Amino acid sequence: MTPHELASASPQQVRTACRTGTFDGPTAGLAPGFAQANLVVLPADLADDFRQFCANNPKPCPVLEITKPGSPEPVRFAPGADLRTDLPRYRMFEHGVCVARTTSVEDHWPIGADLVAFLLGCSFTFERALIDAGVPVRHIEENRNVPMYRTNIECEPSEVFSGPLVVSMRPMTREHAKSATTITARFARVHGAPVHVGRPGEQHSRDLGIPDLSAPDYGDAVTIHPDEVPVFWACGVTPMEAIARAQPAFAITHEPGHMFITDVRDSKLRDPGA
Amino acid sequence: MTPHELASASPQQVRTACRTGTFDGPTAGLAPGFAQANLVVLPADLADDFRQFCANNPKPCPVLEITKPGSPEPVRFAPGADLRTDLPRYRMFEHGVCVARTTSVEDHWPIGADLVAFLLGCSFTFERALIDAGVPVRHIEENRNVPMYRTNIECEPSEVFSGPLVVSMRPMTREHAKSATTITARFARVHGAPVHVGRPGEQHSRDLGIPDLSAPDYGDAVTIHPDEVPVFWACGVTPMEAIARAQPAFAITHEPGHMFITDVRDSKLRDPGA
Repeated sequence: MTPHELASASPQQVRTACRTGTFDGPTAGLAPGFAQANLVVLPADLADDFRQFCANNPKPCPVLEITKPGSPEPVRFAPGADLRTDLPRYRMFEHGVCVARTTSVEDHWPIGADLVAFLLGCSFTFERALIDAGVPVRHIEENRNVPMYRTNIECEPSEVFSGPLVVSMRPMTREHAKSATTITARFARVHGAPVHVGRPGEQHSRDLGIPDLSAPDYGDAVTIHPDEVPVFWACGVTPMEAIARAQPAFAITHEPGHMFITDVRDSKLRDPGA
Repeated sequence: MTPHELASASPQQVRTACRTGTFDGPTAGLAPGFAQANLVVLPADLADDFRQFCANNPKPCPVLEITKPGSPEPVRFAPGADLRTDLPRYRMFEHGVCVARTTSVEDHWPIGADLVAFLLGCSFTFERALIDAGVPVRHIEENRNVPMYRTNIECEPSEVFSGPLVVSMRPMTREHAKSATTITARFARVHGAPVHVGRPGEQHSRDLGIPDLSAPDYGDAVTIHPDEVPVFWACGVTPMEAIARAQPAFAITHEPGHMFITDVRDSKLRDPGA
């Protein structure tokens, strides 16, 4: 598929392109109007504890759907899809270490395996609402992956999982940041309002423990114009840091920015009444 | 216990007063500094679906803890407590109808019964932060239960559960409403930012389907001064409406405003980084 074809493709078309190997790039801006999701796959005996980690940290880890143990099908968000093949890229972890980056995990996740998949909300889901309100989304303009950073903010731990909050960043004017805050506050299921607005550490702004905005820990750096401030949202890459620290025997995640595209309209993930 | 003693009591002291029958009133303002929680008890075979209902509606139904089937002890939020006796008041439902309002449900919830209890975040948890910031909380000032209203906003349904959003209301000046929005946006686990600011239906304000603010569906009416606007937050009474509609064979909830007081500091429920 050409970039142009992808930009107007349906969720099914993007997933098929992932499955057949014709697409393996970041998904921001793809299948406009449909919600995207982070993926975390864990051994079933850790599912309850990870669920608690998500409940403890609803801003980075808003649960959209949890699969039945043994099934790679998200029956609510994309019936018929296969989470083992339908994302562009994956990371595989053994004892907390990323041991492979692949475009399919079918060989390592047989049907019936004692694994549970979590789909977590993704901020790409509210980007359409930002663009519709005239708020520019730089990484889409620049055709890059969104920049993501590890912070010095600790998540609220569960028994097994703990780790630093990871944030995504979009630069914009202060005026746009106000609109973006109002808009995204209505999307609690996809990270909600920003966790921070402004250059970390500058002018009484909180130091997030991000030494250099031009060197993201995940994704790509984007242009920040002089009249702009960085705006940070809680990010669904946070579980990767928790996996690195908890060192479960086995885990799979999406590759940051390379999301699962669901069949659910992003407007459905707006808070009821918002 | 006298009102004065209660106002400075510890969570354990309030729970003991509930258990021994010396207290059965609303809990706003009690055990200051400690998180309060809504209670929903359901047959274990409905737990997964109700969990999905909560995931679909994180603003009214933020999950704090889910008990192990058969156990009435919330091991994370109040180890040693007994959810069958340690709340001031309960409602018991059969087939969606409230059949009893009691101060204990021990007789109907034997240890080992195939029931699961959900503790959901409660907005009383952020009231201390409001008061500390100089934002008045009228129902505490007037020593009443918080007013709550059924709205015309439908929750995002799960397979079994659906129903209208219920909201709590606090009147304040527009200036205070701005501060309250900023403060409560940092408490995603206890309903987060308001869902609505302003008199419903007046001056282009959304009609929430609330015909009369002086006649709340749950709790007590409070004074609204002429220079004030009502500010509405998603409310943990929402599951009672979902129970009324889904008509499960059996269910228990707290009595609105009569919450479970946990051993967890309310500051612990602030979002990481907020």
